[in-house]
Amino acid sequence: MDSVYLRDIPLEQAWERLRLALEEAGLWGPLEAEEIPLDQALGRVTAEPVWATTSSPHYHAAAMDGYALSSASTNGASDRAPVTLTLGQAAVYVDTGDPLPEWADAVVPIENVEPVGRIEGGRAQESIRLRAPLAPWNHVRPMGEDMVATELVLPAGQKLRPVDLGAVAGSGHGTVRVWRRPRVAIIPTGSELVPSGSQPRTGEIIEYNSLVLAAQVESWGGTADRWPIVPDDFDRILSAMTEAAQDHDLVLVNAGSSAGSEDYTASAVESLGRLFVHGVAVRPGHPVILGMLDASLAPATGRRTRVSSRQVPVIGVPGYPVSAALTGEAFVEPLLARWLGRRPLEPPRVQAVLTRKVHSSAGDDEYLRVTVGRVGDRIVAAPLSRGAGVITSLVRADGIVLIPAGIQGVEAGEMVTVRLYRTPEEIDRTLVVLGSHDLTIDLMAQFLAERDIRLTSANLGSLGGLVALRRGEAHLAGSHLLDAETGEYNLAYIHKYLPGLAVVVVALVGREQGLIVAPGNPKGIQGLPDLARPEVSFINRQRGAGTRVLLDYYLERLGVTADAIRGYLQEEYTHLAVAAAVASGRADCGLGIRAAANALRLDFVPLFSERYDLVIPRLHYESAQLRPLLELLSDARFRQAVEGMPGYDVTPMGTIIAEIGP
Amino acid sequence: MDSVYLRDIPLEQAWERLRLALEEAGLWGPLEAEEIPLDQALGRVTAEPVWATTSSPHYHAAAMDGYALSSASTNGASDRAPVTLTLGQAAVYVDTGDPLPEWADAVVPIENVEPVGRIEGGRAQESIRLRAPLAPWNHVRPMGEDMVATELVLPAGQKLRPVDLGAVAGSGHGTVRVWRRPRVAIIPTGSELVPSGSQPRTGEIIEYNSLVLAAQVESWGGTADRWPIVPDDFDRILSAMTEAAQDHDLVLVNAGSSAGSEDYTASAVESLGRLFVHGVAVRPGHPVILGMLDASLAPATGRRTRVSSRQVPVIGVPGYPVSAALTGEAFVEPLLARWLGRRPLEPPRVQAVLTRKVHSSAGDDEYLRVTVGRVGDRIVAAPLSRGAGVITSLVRADGIVLIPAGIQGVEAGEMVTVRLYRTPEEIDRTLVVLGSHDLTIDLMAQFLAERDIRLTSANLGSLGGLVALRRGEAHLAGSHLLDAETGEYNLAYIHKYLPGLAVVVVALVGREQGLIVAPGNPKGIQGLPDLARPEVSFINRQRGAGTRVLLDYYLERLGVTADAIRGYLQEEYTHLAVAAAVASGRADCGLGIRAAANALRLDFVPLFSERYDLVIPRLHYESAQLRPLLELLSDARFRQAVEGMPGYDVTPMGTIIAEIGP
Repeated sequence: MDSVYLRDIPLEQAWERLRLALEEAGLWGPLEAEEIPLDQALGRVTAEPVWATTSSPHYHAAAMDGYALSSASTNGASDRAPVTLTLGQAAVYVDTGDPLPEWADAVVPIENVEPVGRIEGGRAQESIRLRAPLAPWNHVRPMGEDMVATELVLPAGQKLRPVDLGAVAGSGHGTVRVWRRPRVAIIPTGSELVPSGSQPRTGEIIEYNSLVLAAQVESWGGTADRWPIVPDDFDRILSAMTEAAQDHDLVLVNAGSSAGSEDYTASAVESLGRLFVHGVAVRPGHPVILGMLDASLAPATGRRTRVSSRQVPVIGVPGYPVSAALTGEAFVEPLLARWLGRRPLEPPRVQAVLTRKVHSSAGDDEYLRVTVGRVGDRIVAAPLSRGAGVITSLVRADGIVLIPAGIQGVEAGEMVTVRLYRTPEEIDRTLVVLGSHDLTIDLMAQFLAERDIRLTSANLGSLGGLVALRRGEAHLAGSHLLDAETGEYNLAYIHKYLPGLAVVVVALVGREQGLIVAPGNPKGIQGLPDLARPEVSFINRQRGAGTRVLLDYYLERLGVTADAIRGYLQEEYTHLAVAAAVASGRADCGLGIRAAANALRLDFVPLFSERYDLVIPRLHYESAQLRPLLELLSDARFRQAVEGMPGYDVTPMGTIIAEIGP
Repeated sequence: MDSVYLRDIPLEQAWERLRLALEEAGLWGPLEAEEIPLDQALGRVTAEPVWATTSSPHYHAAAMDGYALSSASTNGASDRAPVTLTLGQAAVYVDTGDPLPEWADAVVPIENVEPVGRIEGGRAQESIRLRAPLAPWNHVRPMGEDMVATELVLPAGQKLRPVDLGAVAGSGHGTVRVWRRPRVAIIPTGSELVPSGSQPRTGEIIEYNSLVLAAQVESWGGTADRWPIVPDDFDRILSAMTEAAQDHDLVLVNAGSSAGSEDYTASAVESLGRLFVHGVAVRPGHPVILGMLDASLAPATGRRTRVSSRQVPVIGVPGYPVSAALTGEAFVEPLLARWLGRRPLEPPRVQAVLTRKVHSSAGDDEYLRVTVGRVGDRIVAAPLSRGAGVITSLVRADGIVLIPAGIQGVEAGEMVTVRLYRTPEEIDRTLVVLGSHDLTIDLMAQFLAERDIRLTSANLGSLGGLVALRRGEAHLAGSHLLDAETGEYNLAYIHKYLPGLAVVVVALVGREQGLIVAPGNPKGIQGLPDLARPEVSFINRQRGAGTRVLLDYYLERLGVTADAIRGYLQEEYTHLAVAAAVASGRADCGLGIRAAANALRLDFVPLFSERYDLVIPRLHYESAQLRPLLELLSDARFRQAVEGMPGYDVTPMGTIIAEIGP
C-alpha cells in the first residue's frame, strides 16, 4: 500500500480525487436514462425536458355545467328584456368538460337560467330564459388554457412530485424518461459482528451500519443491496467486493478502514483496482477509503474476464456508527445526486448561539451534533456527545455544526451556523430544558409530543442548568441543589446564580436517592459511612450535579473526607451511567435514584428523599409556549405515569415553591 | 339528498364534521400497530416508545487498535523513565471494539508504543514500551456509553430516519412496532375520461387525477389502489364504492362532485352511508364531498352482510386537477397524518410582497398559486393562473398564498404569507424574470438549472416587466417595445417608466414577427392590410405586450383603425395562446412569432424582424447572482440551441445596447 495515502487529507481534496477518477471513468454525470410508466415515477428525476404532445384542453371545453350558446345571441338580455333560446338550436346542454359546438362561444351556468316549457329530470327540455348577457368565452376553458402542444411541461432534472406526474400525463404521455436509480452494494465486514435482532455475547457487536447506509441510499434515490456479514478474511472480502462490483454502481465496504490488524479493505481495493484516498481529515469519520474497482478483473488470476473495462467506485466506510452515517452524508449523497441528475440535498441552516465551549482538533473538520431550540428571540445550540460510537447523539441531534479545520474550538456564546435535520418550524415549537436530568423529563417529552410540542433536554447538572438560564439558553431548568446552610433546595443557589432574574420555582417530584449496589449487595453496603471502607469502590457524579451536592453535604456532616473514598474522582454524568458502572463491576456502588438501579436490575439502599424542582424564568412561565407543560403537572394521566416509576412521589407536583426576583 | 348540505361551508367547519364522524366511528387516531423488520421500517412511525434491551457497548470496549493494560501500571512513565510491559501478562493486543480483560482499564493506541523484542507481522510479540502514563478509561468505550439497557431510545410517534433504525437495532431489536399504513382506494369516475397515455378525441379528457392522488397518498405514507375509470353510471359507481370500502380505510371518489347531471357521488354516498359535507368554501376546490360509508351494508339489498359494522370515510374529490390536488393537501394529508400518529406536514413559510393586485371572492378561502424569488432584500410573490383546470399553475408554483374568506382581495405591494413548496434555500438562488415572454427565456432556464440557478418567469407583457422593475419585483425584464417616434426598441419606454433607475439594456435575440394563419393560409392573408377585410377574424395580444405595441405602430402607419378589425378586442396573453386560437378556428390570424406557428403546425406570414432585449437594473447586473446568466449569452452551446429555433437570430445576443441612468 502506498503510504502517501495513509495520511488524512481535507474533505475537498478527497472529493477532488474522487471527482477526477469518476470523470476519467466517464462516471461524473447521470448514469443512464430509462423510460418508466408514470405510476412508478414519483420521486424520480427527469432525464430530458418533457414537451406537451397534446394541448389541454385540446378543444374548447365547458367550464361549468350549463348551456353552450353564442354570446352574440344574449346581447341586451336584462331583467326587463329577457332572452329566450330554443334548446337544440340556439343552446345545448353541456356538462363541465364537454366540448362546445362549433357555433358556440360561451356557456351559461345551469343555475343562471330559467327553464321554459317542459321540464324533465329537473332540466329544461324546450327553451331557457336569460336575464343577463354573456361575454364571449365566458365559462369556457379555451383550447390550450393549461398547455399547448409542443410547449415545455417540465425541464430536465426535475424531481417528479405528484402534480408533475399529472402535468406529464395531461400533456399526452403515459411514460416518462428518468435517470435510472444507482445500485449500491453494502458489505459489512468484521468477525465480531452479529446481525441485528440477535443477543450479542461479550466481544460481539450488533451490525447495523449496513441498515443505516441502506436506508440512506434508499432515501436519497438509490437502491441498496445488503451483503451478509463478511468475516475478517482477506479472500472472502476480496470475493465479496468482486461480486458486488459486477452489477452495482457503487460498493460500500463498512469497517476495516482504520490501520489495525483487521483492515483488509484498503489492500482489497488496491488488488482490485486503485486506491486514491486513505483517510479524510474530518471528525468523526476520518478513516474513509476512496478507490476505484476494475469490475473486469477476476481477482484470482488478474486476467480480464470481460472485453469492456468497467470502473466501479468503492468507499471504505468507517466502522463507528456516527462516522458511517456522516460518511454517507458527505460522500454517498452528493455522488447519488450527481448520478440522478439532481442537486445535492441542502439542509436548512440557522444561526444559533452555542451553549458550551467546545474544543476541536485544529487539523480536522469537526461535525458537532447539537440540539437546537428557540429561547426568547435567540436560537440556541447545545452540543451533544462527541463519541463516534454514540449513535444516539445523531438520533437526538437537531442539526450539525461544522467547526472547520484550523479553528481550535468555539467559545460558549459564539454564533455558529447549524445545518438543521429538522424544519425551522419544528425548532420554533421546541422547549429547551437544561440542567439536572430526571426520568420525569423524558416522560414529559413523550406527553408533550402528543400536544405537538417538542421538548429537548440536555444534562448539564443542576448548577449547569442555572447558568444556562442566566445566559438565556433554556426555557427552564431541572434542579435539586441542597443548600448546606439551610437544608433547603435550590433557593439559595438561585439567589446566588440568578441575581436580578425573575423566576418561578415549581416542584416537580419527590424522589428517593440512595446507593446503587450489585445484586444481593455482596459488600453489605448500608450507608455513606461504608464508602470509607478500603475494599469498597465508589463511582461519583460530576461536579455541579445535584446528586454530587447531596453526597458532599452528607459526607461533611458525617466527617468523611473525599480522599478516604476509593473512586471519588471517577465521575459519570447520569444516574444510568452510574448504575452501568456498578453493573459492569467498575465500582461497588454509586449514589443515584432507585429507577436507575431498577433499570439495570441492581439493588438499592434508600438513604434520602429529595425534591426535584423546575426553575422557570417568569418571562417563559407566563408565555403561551409553556402553558401545555404547566398544565401537564395537574394532568391525572401524567401524574399516574410518574407515580408508576419506582421511588417517585408526585405529592409536591405543581406546587409553587417560590417566586423570586423583581 | 338533503339540500342543507348543498351549501358550501368553511373549511374548518367541514373538518369539524369530519372529525366528529371519525370520532364516533373510533377512527380519530392511529389505525393499528404492526411489528415489522427494521430493514422495511424507513419512514414509518413508531407506535410505542422503543426501550433499549441491551446496553451499547454491552461491555467495556477498546476504542482504538492497541494494547489493553491497567492504567496504574503506566504511572510515572516518561521519556527518561519508560515503562515496559510484557505481553500476555501486563498488556494484550486488542482491536477496536474488542472487550477489555477484567483487569484492564485503559488502551494504549498501537502507534504510541515501541515494540520490544521479537516482531511478527509488524507487531510486537514480547513486550511494549510506553513513554507516557495513561489515565483510567483512556481509549475505552465504557459499557453503556451509547445507551444503557432499559433506557428510552425513541419516543412513540417518531418517523423513522436511517439513524433511528441504527439506534433501534443497536439497542437490541430486530423489529419495531409502527402504525400500519392507511389503505386508500381511488376511484376515477366519468364517461368522458380516457387513461393517460392514450390520444384523446374531442370530448375525451385524459384521466390523471387518480395518478396525482395516488402519488400524494404514497408520499404521505399511505398505500394507494387506483380503480379503473368508472363511467357515469349510478350502479357501477355504487358497486365500485362498495367494493372499495370492504378493504380500504379511505375511499376517494374523483369527479362527479358538482351539481351537474353526472353527479352520482353524493347520492351514492347517501345510499351507502351518510353524507355530511357537500361543498367547502375554498377556491379552487369547493365541490368537495365528505361522508361515511357503512362497509357492512350490501348496496343491492340494504341488508348487513357482516356482523360487525365498519365505517369508512369517503371523500368526493372535485374533478378539476388543481382542485383535486389541493383537496388532497387539505383533507387527505391531515387525515393520513392522524392515522399514522404523526404531525400534519408543515410547509416552510415566508413573508413576501405580492406583485399584482388580486381580487378574491369574499365568501371563500382562496388558494393563490405564486412563484417566489428574492430580489435584493425583498421576497416577491407573483400570482400564477387561477384556473382550477390549469395543473401547470401548480407545477410552476413555488408556494401558495391563502386569501381568507372575508377579504375582497390583496393589493399589489402588500405583504402576504407564502406556504412554500420549495426550500427557502431554493428561493434564495432564484432569478426572477418578468415582462415579455420568449421561448429563449425557457431555454435559459434549462441551461441555468445545469449551473444550479433557478429561473422563474411570469408573462406580464413588456410594459408590465418595466413596471415590475420599477417596483423592485424582478431581477430583469424581457422587453421588445417599439417606440412610434423613433422606431427604436425599449429606450424611450425605459426613460419614461424607469426614471432615475440605473439600468443596462442587453440585446437577447432578433426574431421574426408575422401573422400566424391556418395551414395552407385558406384566406390568403398577406399582411396587416388584410386584417381590415370583413371576412377575416383576428386574435389580439393584451395591452402592454410588445407585440400589441408593434401591431398598433404599423396599423397607424397603414391608417387602419382598430374598429375595422374583427376580433381586435379579443386578447390573449402569449404567442402560443394566439396560435392556439388560430388552430382551433376561433380566429383566422394573429400576430406572433414563427416558433409559435411552427409549434402548432400552422402557417406563418413573416412581416417584421424585431429585437428582444433584457432590461437589467445595474444593481443586479453587477451582482454575483446574475453572472451565470450574462455568461450564458456568450456560451456557444446556448447560442446554438437558440439558433435551432425557427425565426431566431442570435447575432445581437449579448450586445450592450445602452447603459442608462445615474
